[in-house]
Amino acid sequence: MGKKEAKLADIGEFGFIESIREGCLFSPSRLLMGIGDDCAVIGPYEDKVFLITTDLLIQDIHFILTKTTPFHLGRKAMAVNLSDIAAMGGIPLHAFISVAFPRTADLAMVHGLYSGIKLACQTHKVNILGGDTSASPERLFINVAIVGEAPVDEVLYRKGAMPGDGIYVTGTLGDAAGGLKMIRCEATGPPMKASFLVDAHNNPFPFLEAGRLIARSRLAGAMIDISDGLISDLGHVCRASGAGALLDHPSIPLSEELKDLGKINGFDPYELALYGGEDYRLLITVPEEHCIQFEGLFSGGTPCPIHRIGEMTTEMGIRMAMEDGRVRDINLGGFDHFH
Amino acid sequence: MGKKEAKLADIGEFGFIESIREGCLFSPSRLLMGIGDDCAVIGPYEDKVFLITTDLLIQDIHFILTKTTPFHLGRKAMAVNLSDIAAMGGIPLHAFISVAFPRTADLAMVHGLYSGIKLACQTHKVNILGGDTSASPERLFINVAIVGEAPVDEVLYRKGAMPGDGIYVTGTLGDAAGGLKMIRCEATGPPMKASFLVDAHNNPFPFLEAGRLIARSRLAGAMIDISDGLISDLGHVCRASGAGALLDHPSIPLSEELKDLGKINGFDPYELALYGGEDYRLLITVPEEHCIQFEGLFSGGTPCPIHRIGEMTTEMGIRMAMEDGRVRDINLGGFDHFH
Repeated sequence: MGKKEAKLADIGEFGFIESIREGCLFSPSRLLMGIGDDCAVIGPYEDKVFLITTDLLIQDIHFILTKTTPFHLGRKAMAVNLSDIAAMGGIPLHAFISVAFPRTADLAMVHGLYSGIKLACQTHKVNILGGDTSASPERLFINVAIVGEAPVDEVLYRKGAMPGDGIYVTGTLGDAAGGLKMIRCEATGPPMKASFLVDAHNNPFPFLEAGRLIARSRLAGAMIDISDGLISDLGHVCRASGAGALLDHPSIPLSEELKDLGKINGFDPYELALYGGEDYRLLITVPEEHCIQFEGLFSGGTPCPIHRIGEMTTEMGIRMAMEDGRVRDINLGGFDHFH
Repeated sequence: MGKKEAKLADIGEFGFIESIREGCLFSPSRLLMGIGDDCAVIGPYEDKVFLITTDLLIQDIHFILTKTTPFHLGRKAMAVNLSDIAAMGGIPLHAFISVAFPRTADLAMVHGLYSGIKLACQTHKVNILGGDTSASPERLFINVAIVGEAPVDEVLYRKGAMPGDGIYVTGTLGDAAGGLKMIRCEATGPPMKASFLVDAHNNPFPFLEAGRLIARSRLAGAMIDISDGLISDLGHVCRASGAGALLDHPSIPLSEELKDLGKINGFDPYELALYGGEDYRLLITVPEEHCIQFEGLFSGGTPCPIHRIGEMTTEMGIRMAMEDGRVRDINLGGFDHFH
């Protein structure tokens, strides 16, 4: 669920997850999805299912305490989980917050963190129903679990994409990764543009309204949130659906800010758009016959812009149609291999 | 939910939890219990409610990696959460496991931990439906969240105790704290007796069968699991119920092992029984008119022994009737003050 950084040297992340997935079900009744999507899906109960997701944020792995504020951190810890609920088309209901505070934590840090968490809860009408709190020997740890719900026949999974479906995203890509470059002092630029990117990294927006709109319309095939980067998360949709994808390079949506800062600092904004993480846009696949109606849902940019970036294919793997007409295989390992 | 060690210097644990509890509910429909019991209770859906609990275990705060095995640790991480489900009278259904592994973790540690987790899941028919995994800069962190269910009219809360109710526990007290003394090399003794106590600490047993039996019987008033120590957890029941308690000193159940090792090492086993944590016994209050029938549920020691240790009182606070007939106030601060 969401971002997983553990690179256990010998088996790697996917090997690790696969090794965990074996033998996890001992009571499979009323269970629609276990490990393998943005949320687990249990039910139905009455005409609804419950969606459950959990994400861990660790100091110096997921954030640097001197480069953000406890308030932003609390809000982001909620947002990354709410984004998983959005990606299934759900409505978030309840949050459970576990925090381990360094012994040196002062009350301002504690209250800042919970202010951010509670603002996100208030904005999205989510209850805080429990959690756990502990001292931590050194670093701040935050684990959030969220329970949501959705009508049983409106849940969208990764596995629902079909060859020929249009592929859409709910906004520009790569901004959060650009912001991370600023935060890490690997890039600089005009303050207004730099702060736009830093804000994209520190204050991601969970697309709950768009997710519900899409789920309710029943026009889409599959949905996922882009937490690990476009190629990585589209790859999840492809594998789950048994299909491939052909992206259209000129259609990849980039912000002017990212393009400008790429020019100033000499980095390729497309590399960040394809492989940078933490944008938390939704990626949606839509059968061709529904695409016009689907695009109409977002007329006038409400509730968010929508960009068509390619289509699903019968051929497995991800490819990219370039401006010059060439079609290149996309290497999952990194953009360098792609050039 | 369960054990919370955070001692934020200026406001203390209870001040901290109280400061979090303010402004946590933004959508209170279908919600029977938020923060303040062993589990949150949501519903009803059909004729059932969902019980949700989460607990955090941190290396060098909750466990010392060289003094246990990853297998035992995984099993215990599950047990402490399952005990919270047991304490509400519930049936556990689904687990969500977040783990941050130190970069130095080898595969044997990873597989040992998950073997322990999965054995507990298999034993209690609990699905693992998700979680998150990350690297950790130094220490191992494990957060488990469990979803359970119970018939809506069978859930037992801390707040259901009445003056005159009998107070019962499902086994001997203080063994886990005695085991911790062994683990910390603060006490020694004959290997068989020492290992009994160490096992009580490393391998707590969640009283799920007893919890369901009690809930189904509808004979009890309140229930809680003893994670922080008898006095601390009985104090939760007293405060939630607006009542006090009178304990009977000779009735406090001690194992022969704890008594013997107390004698050998010069510690008072009652101190551990009253203030030591992590026994994970259930504490139950039962209206006097139901007590005989209640005790009959456990005839022949099935599914566990049951011990009556006192009764609830209208007078607030916790007191102890001693062997010599004196009644002493119990100081929540520690057993030293009590003598």
